[in-house]
Amino acid sequence: MSDKSENHFGIHAKWIYTANSKQELLEDYILLIKDGFIEEIVPFKSYSNEEDLNILNLGESLITPGLINAHTHSAMTFLKGISDDQRLNDWLEKSIWPSEAKLLSHDLVFDASQLACLEMLSSGITTFNDMYFFPDATAKAATVVGMRANIGLVFIEFKSGYANDFTDYLDKGLKFRDDFRSEENITTTLAPHAPYTVSDDSFLKIRTYADQLGMNIHCHMHETEWEIKNSIEQHNVRPLTRLDSLGLLGPDFMAVHCVHLDSSDLEIIKKNQINIVSCPVSNMKLASGMPKINTMLNNAQNLAIGTDGSASNNKLSLFDDLKLSALLQRCEMGVKEFLNSKNLFDMATINAAKTLNMQDQIGSIEKQKKADLVSFNLSNIHLQPIYDPLSTLIYSGGRDNVEHVWVNGNLKYSNKEFINDVDVERCINKIKLWKNKTST
Amino acid sequence: MSDKSENHFGIHAKWIYTANSKQELLEDYILLIKDGFIEEIVPFKSYSNEEDLNILNLGESLITPGLINAHTHSAMTFLKGISDDQRLNDWLEKSIWPSEAKLLSHDLVFDASQLACLEMLSSGITTFNDMYFFPDATAKAATVVGMRANIGLVFIEFKSGYANDFTDYLDKGLKFRDDFRSEENITTTLAPHAPYTVSDDSFLKIRTYADQLGMNIHCHMHETEWEIKNSIEQHNVRPLTRLDSLGLLGPDFMAVHCVHLDSSDLEIIKKNQINIVSCPVSNMKLASGMPKINTMLNNAQNLAIGTDGSASNNKLSLFDDLKLSALLQRCEMGVKEFLNSKNLFDMATINAAKTLNMQDQIGSIEKQKKADLVSFNLSNIHLQPIYDPLSTLIYSGGRDNVEHVWVNGNLKYSNKEFINDVDVERCINKIKLWKNKTST
Repeated sequence: MSDKSENHFGIHAKWIYTANSKQELLEDYILLIKDGFIEEIVPFKSYSNEEDLNILNLGESLITPGLINAHTHSAMTFLKGISDDQRLNDWLEKSIWPSEAKLLSHDLVFDASQLACLEMLSSGITTFNDMYFFPDATAKAATVVGMRANIGLVFIEFKSGYANDFTDYLDKGLKFRDDFRSEENITTTLAPHAPYTVSDDSFLKIRTYADQLGMNIHCHMHETEWEIKNSIEQHNVRPLTRLDSLGLLGPDFMAVHCVHLDSSDLEIIKKNQINIVSCPVSNMKLASGMPKINTMLNNAQNLAIGTDGSASNNKLSLFDDLKLSALLQRCEMGVKEFLNSKNLFDMATINAAKTLNMQDQIGSIEKQKKADLVSFNLSNIHLQPIYDPLSTLIYSGGRDNVEHVWVNGNLKYSNKEFINDVDVERCINKIKLWKNKTST
Repeated sequence: MSDKSENHFGIHAKWIYTANSKQELLEDYILLIKDGFIEEIVPFKSYSNEEDLNILNLGESLITPGLINAHTHSAMTFLKGISDDQRLNDWLEKSIWPSEAKLLSHDLVFDASQLACLEMLSSGITTFNDMYFFPDATAKAATVVGMRANIGLVFIEFKSGYANDFTDYLDKGLKFRDDFRSEENITTTLAPHAPYTVSDDSFLKIRTYADQLGMNIHCHMHETEWEIKNSIEQHNVRPLTRLDSLGLLGPDFMAVHCVHLDSSDLEIIKKNQINIVSCPVSNMKLASGMPKINTMLNNAQNLAIGTDGSASNNKLSLFDDLKLSALLQRCEMGVKEFLNSKNLFDMATINAAKTLNMQDQIGSIEKQKKADLVSFNLSNIHLQPIYDPLSTLIYSGGRDNVEHVWVNGNLKYSNKEFINDVDVERCINKIKLWKNKTST
């Protein structure tokens, strides 16, 4: 294949779900990709290959925008399964924090994030929104694997193996941001951990930096009942009310979890046009509660879906979360309409892109957007027969149907093989060594 | 390989979950299989291969008992995805029943059941408990694919393409039972559809046959609130109370669903020592409600897990159901202890075998039981690192980790390939033809 054809090629598939504003599901179309962007979307029967492009014929496959994992802690992959039967507080205090305290380092974060990136890519995820220590190590891992990542500059009100205090977290975060400014696949966000681990003072400074630098804010909110009780004890108000008073909330704010919402919370969410990222598998696995999908859909500016970190989900694939969201929504009290497959899938594509303020570049299959794409092979026995390809993928399929994954028009995963310089075996062996050093 | 070695061989794996009464998880053991039965379970280091047996070395794999799908309608695979966004009543009346009325036949049931069997086998399921029209066609499909099946003799109080009235359903069911008496993999059960589709008179006759023939009874119960309301209107009592009064309930009774249970229902369940089969994905997808896993565990004689039919789940793999059961149980009001991985997995193995009254033959890895086994390859990147192999499989893995499946010690599926005489392509093509004839 000549250089020209590598940068300019076509993909022909039976189905394309665009996630555009009309939620078009195209049948028998060709996507033309040029220099990493979507150049054209053309019906197969009207297409004549005058430029003699290389066309990849995928047959009974569905192409979708690359999936966006709107909340994760990639590096926590080293703790995947360390304590599968504990609720959030015990899980953090008895398993997660001790192991982190013992091992946290740039090398650990790089190794574990790399494995997480491989898992995500092979699950059809092309972009993820991360929050963890050593953000530079996660950004480096994403770059090596070849994914797009929005990396949080983390803030937490205690000393860690990464930083000492607010100023130290900030300095390190901003330095990381500068260091990666030229990496086209890396964007950044301010990521205060949670209301119960960040002070008013720090939140105010974060708001200032968000305004000055035009950065989004990514924060855990209302994950457990304990968190709300704690806020009332400490601050006399619920966490969302506190952050509202501090002026922290707005359309650039991503509130992750929001399992526990009362009517005052809903008002604040609506008034400030904040975005919500739901992580239903993690919430239920840690017994934090069942997120109310319909309520969030009706009140948030955008609702996106995240896996959360591997220590609590424990799959960095969005399929279990998407399916669970649908099941939960259908069982909410008094719900009249079901969340259909398109609206559901948009939570992992275009709505997630809007949440990250990246909708001009990714999240849908439209001309001039970046060619971040996944093809799902729908021909296997698990999926037959097919009445609707999108609902078939969601309810009968999953990550094992991922066939090809492109980022910026570059093929990064194909037929169960990664196309990059990562030594997968070595990466697995490294994670086994880290596992042996944990505090269990 | 000589005939002798085919009937007598060993399997060596890093982990074996036995599902025996001690819930032993063995590390580095060899299973010896002879003439279709488990002959010995021996620590690798103390094993010397004096008989020069063929030993399959599986490395980083977990062997478990073959999974048991305790409730399904295999043939409904032809309707998989036909209406993914409807609640039970509309789904039945607008999509399912019209298509069944139009197409129901022996050929359809055989073709669709065959595809379902292939899907189940490749998902680690070696036994399923079925309820559908033309039970002989489903039994034939299971036999061709090489699975174990407990097939219901179906009763429903209306004429169908299969039978006209109670006597006709009974005659056909008993003839089927006689015809398959010599098939070692086929057992049978009496399967009245549900309280709202079967009369008192028919239920009384079913009880008589159950006693005379020593057969179990398999029936949908308390799936929706509508069903309970309807029973109160028609019979002045809730369905379980009605069946209790008729003397239908007992340890040979399998109540499927039981989403809606009040304290009187729980008393009846406990008093009669009935078994419950929960199908949480199906229940939530059709918005019937969220089954209360903990409540059922505490009251049923045995609690098993089923997928339900493909038209409502839409995966004939038990993994989504197992994981969802755990998540639901953790979020039940006031639950103190989490359902751990062993107790969860037992719902798809030994508890299911007890529910079917087949615990002497299958459901656990013990000497002299039938060698129905699955090996899961746990070496791939999605599962690393492994702190506990069973919870890793449940929370991070799934059907895509199935490596080998044996029924009666015969390898039936291995490395994504079926080992039987079924032409998989032809089977898929047939289902596509049936799909084109449905009422959509």
